[in-house]
Amino acid sequence: MPLKKVSEYIRRNKRFLITTHTSPEGDALGSQLAFYMLLKKMGKFALMVNEDIVPDEYNFLPGANKIQRVRKSLAKFKFDCFVTLDCSDLKRCGKASIFSINKPVVNIDHHISNARFADVNCVDAKASSAAEIVYRLYKQLRIPLNKDIATCLYVGILTDSGSFHYSNTTSLTHKIASHLLKFGLDSAKIYKKIYQSIPFRDIQLLTRILPNLKVQFDGKVAWLGLEKSSLKNTKISIDLTEQILSFARNIKDVEVVVLFKENLKTKNEIRVNFRSQGKIDVNKIAGFFGGGGHKTASGATVKGSLGQVSKKVLAKIKESL
Amino acid sequence: MPLKKVSEYIRRNKRFLITTHTSPEGDALGSQLAFYMLLKKMGKFALMVNEDIVPDEYNFLPGANKIQRVRKSLAKFKFDCFVTLDCSDLKRCGKASIFSINKPVVNIDHHISNARFADVNCVDAKASSAAEIVYRLYKQLRIPLNKDIATCLYVGILTDSGSFHYSNTTSLTHKIASHLLKFGLDSAKIYKKIYQSIPFRDIQLLTRILPNLKVQFDGKVAWLGLEKSSLKNTKISIDLTEQILSFARNIKDVEVVVLFKENLKTKNEIRVNFRSQGKIDVNKIAGFFGGGGHKTASGATVKGSLGQVSKKVLAKIKESL
Repeated sequence: MPLKKVSEYIRRNKRFLITTHTSPEGDALGSQLAFYMLLKKMGKFALMVNEDIVPDEYNFLPGANKIQRVRKSLAKFKFDCFVTLDCSDLKRCGKASIFSINKPVVNIDHHISNARFADVNCVDAKASSAAEIVYRLYKQLRIPLNKDIATCLYVGILTDSGSFHYSNTTSLTHKIASHLLKFGLDSAKIYKKIYQSIPFRDIQLLTRILPNLKVQFDGKVAWLGLEKSSLKNTKISIDLTEQILSFARNIKDVEVVVLFKENLKTKNEIRVNFRSQGKIDVNKIAGFFGGGGHKTASGATVKGSLGQVSKKVLAKIKESL
Repeated sequence: MPLKKVSEYIRRNKRFLITTHTSPEGDALGSQLAFYMLLKKMGKFALMVNEDIVPDEYNFLPGANKIQRVRKSLAKFKFDCFVTLDCSDLKRCGKASIFSINKPVVNIDHHISNARFADVNCVDAKASSAAEIVYRLYKQLRIPLNKDIATCLYVGILTDSGSFHYSNTTSLTHKIASHLLKFGLDSAKIYKKIYQSIPFRDIQLLTRILPNLKVQFDGKVAWLGLEKSSLKNTKISIDLTEQILSFARNIKDVEVVVLFKENLKTKNEIRVNFRSQGKIDVNKIAGFFGGGGHKTASGATVKGSLGQVSKKVLAKIKESL
């Protein structure tokens, strides 16, 4: 991983445009902000531009208010270098990718599927997060950290490692976290802001839905069907799909979790979301129904009623068990 | 914290009886087993004796099968020293405390409410876990770790720090975790064994109970009352209390979570469990009702009906808000 090459690029250039992927989460924003602060510490000029807004739960991140959304007037901004963080390919930046045209591109990422699309590709699939790589850049360039920088890096690592329990968590991940906590971060408060901020009305909705969880095929598949009517007139500020799926992942012996959700806008159409504990490739199953994703997380939109689609999809999953 | 004094005790004595608290969880068992292995490495004779069995989800811990339950025939076992781990007072060991009579007692713990009941009290309320203190004992005595020891210590730290997100998680906690992961632990697999192994019938019970969650006092207190009848004839293999409390902690703006549970064996008695997000000292509140624990996690047993006790306790909490 050419940390040195990135360092040279930073030293040599003066003006940077920094972006991350659409629907940004903790690591996208944490690594983007920490990289921005690195440049500022080195006296560079930098602009952060994303297609999407910063979600509410990440608004507390230092510098989050400096992230701009893609707009035409930004075209007049002169810069030498286009930098992506946490993006496996250029498409992932959405509309922000237009700024990459005719510019040297630096790609800082940790996805195994990274397409090495840039002039300098700084990719380490063994890193827990893009933030972990930015941390190493600080070390390489000997730029001292402060509390704000440490907060951004910590949030990137925390969220992409699932609070230090996903398999991407290494001895080094903890070593870095140990260093970051020395800057006086309130890690419990950070966790609360990101994860423990579900409005009570959403918790109530969730507890009304969860009793409908079912298991099938010797307990290897857990699934839930969600009717449109149960969500009508409900303002939901959480990722309900993610909440249901992650609750169901706590069930013993379950290999695959599936959520069937009636499409709110289109009739006779079901959104199907899959999660696998690792053994079953749900990317293949989603692919069969015209969808896709990763081996352990995928989705598809299937025509039919809730009953028809769930029957069809569960039968397909059965073949893979 | 007299680590040195404990080390001297260990060196001077030869035969140990080691116990932990009733209803043992990750830190109780992890610290007990790691301490047992420390003694074995030093050529000592040691016996682990608990009142309760090792819960299913911790059976994978190396040495778990060597933990014995209290029984009369153990009286013939000669030992020089009685050691408790993760116990704030002698009562917490349940029936195992009978072995402490007329013996020197060593108390290794991290509860702020620790009663300093022993001849040597090795208590650090700033430690994330009892396992963290046992780790320091290994360092102090210069006994090298191995994968089994690292697994036990890691499980103690993981479970008592809520996977590194409770406020007791410090820079040192991560530094120790970084060291432990060097012994080749599969931390994702460990997490799955402990947390993602809830039998479906227990998930069903949980989803029946959770809709009863309530919030009060401007959403600052979340609470749930659990009647004996809803648990009757139900074999539960999870820590239902912990599951309910940790689910409720996800609610936005909640400062304190309380579970009121009718005692299954005793009439007119309610077990009250408290969790605080940090601001409110629930050790004090539990203390008011004759209980105790930590500032952020405590419990008490209160005489009265579910209605009476919840009213009384909620009123007391209100005073602290």
